[in-house]
Amino acid sequence: MTAATVAELADLVGGQVLGDGALRITNVADLRAAGPSEIGFVRDPKFAELAKRSRAGAVIVGTPLEVPMPQIVASPADVAFAKIGLHFHPVPRATRHEVHPSAVIEDGAVLGEPVVIGPQCVVGARATIGAGTLLAPGVIVGADVRIGRDCTIYPRVVIYPGVVLGDRVIVHAGAVLGSDGFGYARDVGGWVKIPQIGDVRIEDDVELGANVTIDRATLGTTRIGKGTKLDNLVHVGHNCVFGEHCAAAGFSAFSGSTIFGDRVVLGGHVVSAGHLRVVDDARIGGNSVLYGDVTEAGDFIGYPLQKKSRWGRTLHVLAQLPELQAELRRVKHLRRKLLETEGDAPDADLPGGSDAPPG
Amino acid sequence: MTAATVAELADLVGGQVLGDGALRITNVADLRAAGPSEIGFVRDPKFAELAKRSRAGAVIVGTPLEVPMPQIVASPADVAFAKIGLHFHPVPRATRHEVHPSAVIEDGAVLGEPVVIGPQCVVGARATIGAGTLLAPGVIVGADVRIGRDCTIYPRVVIYPGVVLGDRVIVHAGAVLGSDGFGYARDVGGWVKIPQIGDVRIEDDVELGANVTIDRATLGTTRIGKGTKLDNLVHVGHNCVFGEHCAAAGFSAFSGSTIFGDRVVLGGHVVSAGHLRVVDDARIGGNSVLYGDVTEAGDFIGYPLQKKSRWGRTLHVLAQLPELQAELRRVKHLRRKLLETEGDAPDADLPGGSDAPPG
Amino acid sequence: MTAATVAELADLVGGQVLGDGALRITNVADLRAAGPSEIGFVRDPKFAELAKRSRAGAVIVGTPLEVPMPQIVASPADVAFAKIGLHFHPVPRATRHEVHPSAVIEDGAVLGEPVVIGPQCVVGARATIGAGTLLAPGVIVGADVRIGRDCTIYPRVVIYPGVVLGDRVIVHAGAVLGSDGFGYARDVGGWVKIPQIGDVRIEDDVELGANVTIDRATLGTTRIGKGTKLDNLVHVGHNCVFGEHCAAAGFSAFSGSTIFGDRVVLGGHVVSAGHLRVVDDARIGGNSVLYGDVTEAGDFIGYPLQKKSRWGRTLHVLAQLPELQAELRRVKHLRRKLLETEGDAPDADLPGGSDAPPG
Repeated sequence: MTAATVAELADLVGGQVLGDGALRITNVADLRAAGPSEIGFVRDPKFAELAKRSRAGAVIVGTPLEVPMPQIVASPADVAFAKIGLHFHPVPRATRHEVHPSAVIEDGAVLGEPVVIGPQCVVGARATIGAGTLLAPGVIVGADVRIGRDCTIYPRVVIYPGVVLGDRVIVHAGAVLGSDGFGYARDVGGWVKIPQIGDVRIEDDVELGANVTIDRATLGTTRIGKGTKLDNLVHVGHNCVFGEHCAAAGFSAFSGSTIFGDRVVLGGHVVSAGHLRVVDDARIGGNSVLYGDVTEAGDFIGYPLQKKSRWGRTLHVLAQLPELQAELRRVKHLRRKLLETEGDAPDADLPGGSDAPPG
Repeated sequence: MTAATVAELADLVGGQVLGDGALRITNVADLRAAGPSEIGFVRDPKFAELAKRSRAGAVIVGTPLEVPMPQIVASPADVAFAKIGLHFHPVPRATRHEVHPSAVIEDGAVLGEPVVIGPQCVVGARATIGAGTLLAPGVIVGADVRIGRDCTIYPRVVIYPGVVLGDRVIVHAGAVLGSDGFGYARDVGGWVKIPQIGDVRIEDDVELGANVTIDRATLGTTRIGKGTKLDNLVHVGHNCVFGEHCAAAGFSAFSGSTIFGDRVVLGGHVVSAGHLRVVDDARIGGNSVLYGDVTEAGDFIGYPLQKKSRWGRTLHVLAQLPELQAELRRVKHLRRKLLETEGDAPDADLPGGSDAPPG
Repeated sequence: MTAATVAELADLVGGQVLGDGALRITNVADLRAAGPSEIGFVRDPKFAELAKRSRAGAVIVGTPLEVPMPQIVASPADVAFAKIGLHFHPVPRATRHEVHPSAVIEDGAVLGEPVVIGPQCVVGARATIGAGTLLAPGVIVGADVRIGRDCTIYPRVVIYPGVVLGDRVIVHAGAVLGSDGFGYARDVGGWVKIPQIGDVRIEDDVELGANVTIDRATLGTTRIGKGTKLDNLVHVGHNCVFGEHCAAAGFSAFSGSTIFGDRVVLGGHVVSAGHLRVVDDARIGGNSVLYGDVTEAGDFIGYPLQKKSRWGRTLHVLAQLPELQAELRRVKHLRRKLLETEGDAPDADLPGGSDAPPG
């Protein structure tokens, strides 16, 4: 946490200063809790009142507000807030070279300088770790793994042999990268394992959440594209591909060979059946199930997947199913009565009769 | 496992003895497998026959039964069974002071006495561990973490810097407490990480399952209230709050800022969309999706969420959807026929016609 | 990777050679990427064209094809491909005895010969590890655990005290075997833990995915039968039983006392409510919810669970719910009009009227 003036922070985000740019700021904080040396964030002009009453020394805003403290006007304001937050709370990286004596570095491993290799880490044979990268305690790096520069690998991450990570990758605790894909052939006596001999590539600026699992490809590569972010407890099956700058919220699972384009955004608890493609710029809402390709950009959600505008109405009908059935019973009764009046045999020669389910 | 007489065990749970209170008991067991020095449990009087045929030395019952062996009558009987089970199988805690030579204790860490710090553990700078607490092998405790007294932290748990645990907390293997919440701002070139600078507080008597993930707050605190229990593979997003004595069965995910009251009970595989509140004493059935506040106590379930009594009927209708559609087709045919008879144009000036979906 | 001739590989899988059996093969590969010393795989005769254009030295086929390179004809061809793949990429096992100096072996542990105990492993008191078994770095084996021969335990797996593994078991990184089941009794002041004093048995040839969690039984045994395969992030509750040669794709959760027969196959993201049975040879599609017994073999899917053939139609209707409701509104209007014509009070004495939901 390095203190900075309001003007310096504004420079950092290409923002304008309104008020005293010389004020010294030491941290970001919630408007309700901020003190006079902290800077808060007004997400929306409608929260201007909150800012007025705040003790914050300064505020970050998207458009100028009538508030008593200095303002940094920047757009988008949330990006400015994030960048100023990162100034005070940078992602931990290696700034001095430090290999803990309890760490095990196997033959042929190549460590850049500086790197931090924490206690109880294992760096496998011939693995390479780029300068600036920090391995927190208990990280297990397999043989022939390549990790780029300025990465942050949190405790107890496991990286299987041969997996490749780019630069500035962040991996949270407990994640497993490169475990075998789930593939078996059925023989007379049981399942025969199909060896999973492909690899995993995690490109630059990816962030992976706690206890994520990413399987290696059967043949070829499971790839997480540049800038993509996956939240906690996400499972990525063998041969999946994420394009660049995607984001998937937590507790989701993508079966083998799900291919996402660029900038795809997925809500939490989305499941894909695999062997399908999702185009660039698709946005898939939470709790969706993907059973086929998504061929258009835009907002989709549900099971079966549909346009977001439609899903709200579908949920509305789902909430009324008992009443719908009751109404349909009344109508059916009336239909029978009418048919009897006309002397027809019920259901005779009517469309729909033939496709009644067998069971 | 300390042997005890039936009378001593009855005292432990405030129960009454029927029969020989001096009988020595060495363990709890299933009625079908119990031997003459073991005590079984009759969940319900309808299982009295099972007790009669059992070789168990004694039984725990809610109401007196006609069985040949000594009984401990206690209510609720399952609580008595749990407490007597814990007498024979106490949760492992530190009873002697023991820091394994392979453990790494960083500068300024403060260990109570006695504590057990298992092999390959790492206790970060300035962390404090209360007396009676046991860290099983491979636990990683970050800097400035505070762990209370008599806690049990199973192997390979990761506790990020600054997280606070109360007393008698149990955390199962592989759980990750305090990883970054999932927050990014969208900039022209991609996602910018919003630093997650809040913390996590786990209050007294909480138990967390294997491979659970609990994210730290963006600003403020992610809190798991006193006595709350979370099962395996549960994801708790940033700024979530669980009140006291809640329970959430496994494989569930709560998106950011889901706020649960006290004594909320959640079945397995429940997902919350976040930024919502659930009142005290709500009970949410398994496989539910929470998209809005739950403002009443009682039993709710489903997607969309509804009263439990209603959900059974909704499932019933869901199971009949193909037939419903077929019936509706027949009715539609009839409607068209009637309208033609009357000379009206089909669908003209009828309610419902205007809100037919566009696509 | 041991090179072998086409004829030797054919012998390995009981296949026939067409063409030059003396050709030396060094690896398996994708047909599109294979070189002249590699063998590819033609899944289906319709891919013959791909094989013709491939640079692969040889191919594995189910039925003879007109291709320029030597063929191994074997049925089923995918089993032959798997076995030949395993020849070149065998599952890592211990072939030399090697206990890393950083590993901690506690009193009374018994190691077969050869075994590999990787860096930072902990083998608990009285645990036994069979010959041929490999513990990758950071594996934690509890007291009294028994692991059979030729097992492969990937990094950071945790095996709680008393758990038993058979021979040739593979466990991927981060899996937790034997954590406490989720059981509490509700007392006046909160939950009382029901001690989980049963065990877990993993039989021969089981493979468990990354970050899987398998809870120990309350009393008795949680059992994963011989040859069964579980994918990543699968949760198995206390007292569950999998029969032999089952397979469950990733991101699934089975609540306590779910009992699967033999050869049950489960798609991804299947959830079971527990205390239910699924017969031998049932196949449950992805995203299903099991709330009751499955008493027939065959294909089932959905929520509520139904025959696979029917679920497709149910999804079709689900996709049309808004239109269905619109149509029903039109019909309702007509019904009301007809009833008014007849002078009846709407809804009087009609079936369905009485079971309209209360709220």
